[in-house]
Amino acid sequence: MSYINLSGIFPPLPTSFDKYENLLPEKIRQNITRLCEYDLTGFLILGSNGEQVMLTDREKSEAIAAAREALPDGRLLLAGTGGQSTRETIALTKAAAAEGADAVLVLNPFYFKSLMTNEALVKHYLDVADASTVPVIVYNMPGNTGLDMTSAMIIAMASHPNIIGMKESGGNVVKMGEVLLRAKPGFQVLAGGAGFLLPALSTGAVGGILALANIAPSQCLQIVRSFKEGDMISAMRLQHMMIPVNAAVTARWGVPALKEAMDYLGLYGGPARRPLLPLTDDVRRQLAELIAESGIEKFN
Amino acid sequence: MSYINLSGIFPPLPTSFDKYENLLPEKIRQNITRLCEYDLTGFLILGSNGEQVMLTDREKSEAIAAAREALPDGRLLLAGTGGQSTRETIALTKAAAAEGADAVLVLNPFYFKSLMTNEALVKHYLDVADASTVPVIVYNMPGNTGLDMTSAMIIAMASHPNIIGMKESGGNVVKMGEVLLRAKPGFQVLAGGAGFLLPALSTGAVGGILALANIAPSQCLQIVRSFKEGDMISAMRLQHMMIPVNAAVTARWGVPALKEAMDYLGLYGGPARRPLLPLTDDVRRQLAELIAESGIEKFN
Amino acid sequence: MSYINLSGIFPPLPTSFDKYENLLPEKIRQNITRLCEYDLTGFLILGSNGEQVMLTDREKSEAIAAAREALPDGRLLLAGTGGQSTRETIALTKAAAAEGADAVLVLNPFYFKSLMTNEALVKHYLDVADASTVPVIVYNMPGNTGLDMTSAMIIAMASHPNIIGMKESGGNVVKMGEVLLRAKPGFQVLAGGAGFLLPALSTGAVGGILALANIAPSQCLQIVRSFKEGDMISAMRLQHMMIPVNAAVTARWGVPALKEAMDYLGLYGGPARRPLLPLTDDVRRQLAELIAESGIEKFN
Amino acid sequence: MSYINLSGIFPPLPTSFDKYENLLPEKIRQNITRLCEYDLTGFLILGSNGEQVMLTDREKSEAIAAAREALPDGRLLLAGTGGQSTRETIALTKAAAAEGADAVLVLNPFYFKSLMTNEALVKHYLDVADASTVPVIVYNMPGNTGLDMTSAMIIAMASHPNIIGMKESGGNVVKMGEVLLRAKPGFQVLAGGAGFLLPALSTGAVGGILALANIAPSQCLQIVRSFKEGDMISAMRLQHMMIPVNAAVTARWGVPALKEAMDYLGLYGGPARRPLLPLTDDVRRQLAELIAESGIEKFN
Repeated sequence: MSYINLSGIFPPLPTSFDKYENLLPEKIRQNITRLCEYDLTGFLILGSNGEQVMLTDREKSEAIAAAREALPDGRLLLAGTGGQSTRETIALTKAAAAEGADAVLVLNPFYFKSLMTNEALVKHYLDVADASTVPVIVYNMPGNTGLDMTSAMIIAMASHPNIIGMKESGGNVVKMGEVLLRAKPGFQVLAGGAGFLLPALSTGAVGGILALANIAPSQCLQIVRSFKEGDMISAMRLQHMMIPVNAAVTARWGVPALKEAMDYLGLYGGPARRPLLPLTDDVRRQLAELIAESGIEKFN
Repeated sequence: MSYINLSGIFPPLPTSFDKYENLLPEKIRQNITRLCEYDLTGFLILGSNGEQVMLTDREKSEAIAAAREALPDGRLLLAGTGGQSTRETIALTKAAAAEGADAVLVLNPFYFKSLMTNEALVKHYLDVADASTVPVIVYNMPGNTGLDMTSAMIIAMASHPNIIGMKESGGNVVKMGEVLLRAKPGFQVLAGGAGFLLPALSTGAVGGILALANIAPSQCLQIVRSFKEGDMISAMRLQHMMIPVNAAVTARWGVPALKEAMDYLGLYGGPARRPLLPLTDDVRRQLAELIAESGIEKFN
Repeated sequence: MSYINLSGIFPPLPTSFDKYENLLPEKIRQNITRLCEYDLTGFLILGSNGEQVMLTDREKSEAIAAAREALPDGRLLLAGTGGQSTRETIALTKAAAAEGADAVLVLNPFYFKSLMTNEALVKHYLDVADASTVPVIVYNMPGNTGLDMTSAMIIAMASHPNIIGMKESGGNVVKMGEVLLRAKPGFQVLAGGAGFLLPALSTGAVGGILALANIAPSQCLQIVRSFKEGDMISAMRLQHMMIPVNAAVTARWGVPALKEAMDYLGLYGGPARRPLLPLTDDVRRQLAELIAESGIEKFN
Repeated sequence: MSYINLSGIFPPLPTSFDKYENLLPEKIRQNITRLCEYDLTGFLILGSNGEQVMLTDREKSEAIAAAREALPDGRLLLAGTGGQSTRETIALTKAAAAEGADAVLVLNPFYFKSLMTNEALVKHYLDVADASTVPVIVYNMPGNTGLDMTSAMIIAMASHPNIIGMKESGGNVVKMGEVLLRAKPGFQVLAGGAGFLLPALSTGAVGGILALANIAPSQCLQIVRSFKEGDMISAMRLQHMMIPVNAAVTARWGVPALKEAMDYLGLYGGPARRPLLPLTDDVRRQLAELIAESGIEKFN
């Protein structure tokens, strides 16, 4: 149970499939190798963008193993392991650690929304943290789960020595501030979206797990660098530039658009699993325009 | 691919666990045998109350097999098979049919909410219906999924010959009416909650899949009977009486309360899987009072 | 402070404006006179469809006075008087009673949503009921207010002798049932939308305040009649037929569509006040088709 | 129609009432005089915290006049003038300008939510801006209105020369960034809550209209100053410190708590209008503790 420094930028890597929707571990490896040309702190495997909810247990293990294999020394591997039951979450967490994950990102259970009280959710995370051999990062993603964990919940979870941080994907900078005020010293907040990376840093976040970092790693890293250097004007300008393209590959058109953008820029994207549909030609054109306007360049 | 008459009442059976949260197939069989003393049309295995989202694939198959074994001739077995991907949903559907399910109840994918357009969801259901050897029932459960399928979606799905009906758990009687007006003749609507059974029948529903039917089968059946006999006063009175206890074992305290009520009344309830917590003593007392006030009697 | 029997159907009359958006009291009178050819129990002036939130205090009084003038003996006049403060609500209530309203329909305050606790809202209604010389009807309209009053709130309000009923516009038939089970005997529930009139009656509602009754009074009345005669098949068929056109003049295209339909059918509709926009030509055509399909006939 | 520089901090002054809920213009003047000891850019009269929705037209004019009277040269007076109709909003805007408001803050109409399309809302604001002799600031307050204006709407409104900025009270820093990227140069964004002041500044906001500035003007000003000096560590620390007390006087306990805090600190708070209830003794104690922990000092 060791502390891990989460400062910096992590792409939540999409899971690669062939045209029959079968897993392609070699494309995961290939993408990681390409992205490691940038100064990224590490990768998240099996996040929302990794279509975690679409994969079998065996596929999850294979994806983590593929990532581990491709990852050079000095980069971190985070794996998404949240399930609807405590039992499943613990099993996935142990399997991820066995495949070499350095830490796990645990999405909260959310199906039985009305029963997910403060007490139920805090106990769930403490149980998982007790059972995990690697550090646990809390993952709040209200846009997908329909359940927004409160700062009081996060602060209570942070009391466990094995819970080292949170990813906040709701963009709630007030919650980030409240967590940082009240949680134990050293508790690390990560932005869960590139649209609010700079405001999150300004509130005390140490970095981000950002879909956009799969296609614009240098821009995401540059925002952090400008912020640290106190060059707020440059940071703001770049932050603003990234908002439309980031919205396109997240809330607006989602994983299929992120994968399409990766294909377009020279990485492997490939199809998403159904019911996620491929982009229409019209959307594909709009996406290409947004990429062009944002100044993102192709991988060489 | 044959038509199935869904008229009447189906309990969505909870899945039985021991105190270590391990599956107890014999308790599933036992509960079914006891409930078959009532004139129920059949059972749903692996609905929301069956904690479907908490079970492994193997456990799902075992639970269906146990139910099939216990079920006497002339009763229907429905099985919940909705997953987040089309691929998984088809696999679960085939497995359920192989274990003897007469039809499948398919909850919609909902994790990628913003991408679950009319087009994506209709295609998903048509793909599943194409692949299924047994009839498909559409399952709308906005309280848990955070996504409310529209009547337009349901009507489009109903065009498939293998999609024979829907379970509406949102209590939206306007939607039921619109579906019945526009969907193919013979499309069957089932109420998804006992709190609105009578209004649903008055709108044209043929019956219900009702958590309450696990603990108050005779009352649920009596509401249908009174309605059919045109005795609206009796039907209304009984409907009103059932509302508070039904709320207690559904929206308010959920599956743990339903299981507690089953234990209390002489069936097997047992624990729910974490993060669902056992009831506090205070809630347990309130539940017992609500049961008493409702006139529900113990199984003998 | 006398009891009033609310059984039957009330149109919530739109407020008539000329093309400069000025009030036209004579058109209010004219519409009432025409609609009184039907066996309607009475009218609601200044409901949501009456654009109550768009009117000055003086205009509100003029509209009520015009309605009173046109109303023949034996018909009831309800007036909407809900404001954001208790003080304003009481002032509007007194003014409405002075202009001849038989009862007031009081929408809840909702701007300070997070502060509208059970305690605050119940006290508000009791204060208004204390101050009112005419009976008070509670008005729940979550689609517009963004605040859904609970059955517990309504039941507490019903304890006041001067609070005689509620209009439920959220379509929540479970809430209606719970209120009827727990509120004082004689507390009257009115459906707030024609899309769920029959299910509401089946739950014990005594009638409805229905936008659709402005354009299809005979159909609304016929649903009630068939229900009372026990002819559920006819009632259901007519209920289903009314759903699409009702949606068109309420949730979908709102007040401008209701007014357009009135113009189309031979009553006075006229424009709504901005920011409500006139229908586009395309929507106007669709509306005419929906009216035709529904079997609603022109006033002669 | 002249440009106004909105940089800096504005308290949205509560409207003072006596114990009978009658307006107290002298207390408005007194509070302004006291707060003018701080380097505030100006004041907002008749915002949400000013209980604008609770006031008659006459009271609104009196409140603005009182503020104008007390305001020294060089400070700006903003007045809230949003109503549900375009007509009313224009009338209130003209009245506010006549009483001396330097600009108006216009909350969007929201009662007919489903009809408040992009087209309807943009036209509303353009109509108001056309009619106004003073600059218009768009006010987005989804927590109270239940309607969240999109960046696309705001950007379209910003095309009008008389629409000079927006107040964003939803805390959506992504929206702020998108507006700043796409709206005309010089369009000014103001934070609508002190909980996200620093993140808003980091995104390009020029200041804020902050309930907290009524009780902690020096802290709000200090956050802006530290940010401008590039001292992010001090700014962050102070930002975090302000979050709990700010939540207490806004989302959690609202206007009554803000008024109580003003009384406690030596300004005039007084009662809110019903249905807003006075704080309980327990909440009053908690509020005093939160104030103490935050380091806010009494006015002398």
